[in-house]
Amino acid sequence: MTITGNTQVFMIVGDPVAQVRAPEIYNHLFQRHNVDAVLVPMKVPPASLAGFVRHTMAAGNVGGMWVTIPHKAAMQNLMDRCDPLAQIAGAVNAVRRGDDGAIEGALFDGLGFVNGLDYFGIPLAGRRVLVVGAGGGGQAVAAALAQRGVGHLAIYNRTAARAAELVARLAPVFGNIVSVAESADPAGYDLIVNCTSQGLKADDPLPVDVLRVDEGASVVDIIMTREPTPLLKACAQRGIAAHAGFEMLVQQIPEYLKFFGMTDLAQTLQNDLTEVRSLLYPK
Amino acid sequence: MTITGNTQVFMIVGDPVAQVRAPEIYNHLFQRHNVDAVLVPMKVPPASLAGFVRHTMAAGNVGGMWVTIPHKAAMQNLMDRCDPLAQIAGAVNAVRRGDDGAIEGALFDGLGFVNGLDYFGIPLAGRRVLVVGAGGGGQAVAAALAQRGVGHLAIYNRTAARAAELVARLAPVFGNIVSVAESADPAGYDLIVNCTSQGLKADDPLPVDVLRVDEGASVVDIIMTREPTPLLKACAQRGIAAHAGFEMLVQQIPEYLKFFGMTDLAQTLQNDLTEVRSLLYPK
Repeated sequence: MTITGNTQVFMIVGDPVAQVRAPEIYNHLFQRHNVDAVLVPMKVPPASLAGFVRHTMAAGNVGGMWVTIPHKAAMQNLMDRCDPLAQIAGAVNAVRRGDDGAIEGALFDGLGFVNGLDYFGIPLAGRRVLVVGAGGGGQAVAAALAQRGVGHLAIYNRTAARAAELVARLAPVFGNIVSVAESADPAGYDLIVNCTSQGLKADDPLPVDVLRVDEGASVVDIIMTREPTPLLKACAQRGIAAHAGFEMLVQQIPEYLKFFGMTDLAQTLQNDLTEVRSLLYPK
Repeated sequence: MTITGNTQVFMIVGDPVAQVRAPEIYNHLFQRHNVDAVLVPMKVPPASLAGFVRHTMAAGNVGGMWVTIPHKAAMQNLMDRCDPLAQIAGAVNAVRRGDDGAIEGALFDGLGFVNGLDYFGIPLAGRRVLVVGAGGGGQAVAAALAQRGVGHLAIYNRTAARAAELVARLAPVFGNIVSVAESADPAGYDLIVNCTSQGLKADDPLPVDVLRVDEGASVVDIIMTREPTPLLKACAQRGIAAHAGFEMLVQQIPEYLKFFGMTDLAQTLQNDLTEVRSLLYPK
């Protein structure tokens, strides 16, 4: 990788940033596919975020930003405009300058998730879906599921008010296919998605009672751990189709590249995501 | 070069930036000498400079900035503190965060220049020096020559007021070794330095009358062109020792690295600048 005065610069903005893997992954792709761009980490304290975004996005060769913890929600408030998924979820993970100079935000978490369902061969049209957890992940996933179109979308959250709040944001856009679930009981659903943090620790209780999952239903756990989560293991024992959340990250990569105008590279990768998967999850 | 979340990020700030060669040179050095740092270009419009510096220098993993045209003078005004050379010349080309969080500036143009004189074997103690041109380059060179200690330093500028202004800034620090030269006549000087832009174009008149240069005197032209400047050619014809300004850039590189805390790399390069010269001026 050779950085020159002509190289377009992208930033991944977080605090901390030591853990981010995006620079390794994207710089590898830029280099391998001859895109003259570089992605660098930027450890931006929350108090500086607004000024940082305004002033770095005014730099002529800054192409945009990847946004990570803890800035996704705060960043959404700084945008001149956002795509509907970002607006509903109240978060952005990508920022660019529009042709008119406006700062535009987008959120690809949910889009990556539903693209992942396509990859797993899980149909959505007419299906009944339960999303467990209405935090950042749950909001992004629920908005994308509603946008893609499902038969019914029920949202459960331990603190019920949070689920109600999310439904109140989704219903005006997507109508009465969305409702609050009174419990996390998975019975009667075709797809159950864990968007809680239950499963991050090995001794966490399961987010849903796997014995109550319908035969033929699918389960996805968006928790990203190297080892299968307790939920995925319990499903496997019962012979229920269950998938890890990793694919959500894989599928976001072409979306980011499209957003930043790298359409050729996005298309190449979308045709074959093997390279991306092996970069994200080296054997 | 692998950029991770732990990589320290440096920026070269200019407008335009397409022409800058620093990213290629320094990233090559970082990679070859295992320094986990990256230097990226930043095209910052003058109106954004103040906000840009304040907000990017607040990012925890930003190590500092290289500063180039047109920001060197404006940047000096944005610093919490500066080294004496930057203060006298009213310009900085390097910016870092001090241990107390203050933003510190330094100017290495002049230091690179006098280090280059050492490399050429041109002595300074007790010598009479004429600097022709009191613009940005002249100011940096004059301040560094005065700081290093010369017998006498005369400054000529076509617009005399500008030379007088520079002398007025130098005299309080370095005393009456500094004066305004009434003409660009090189007779009576041991060292003559061209800091004007005369010689950038092939048909420019010479900045000094080479026939009037003392035998045994040295001439340095800080104009950086691939071909020897008309001044250097005229000196060569008369058998006068004359040197191009390139070495000024070479000698600045270890100074930048020291300033940014990369002392081991700075020392390694200072011991043998061959690698740096071949990077800057590939055959």
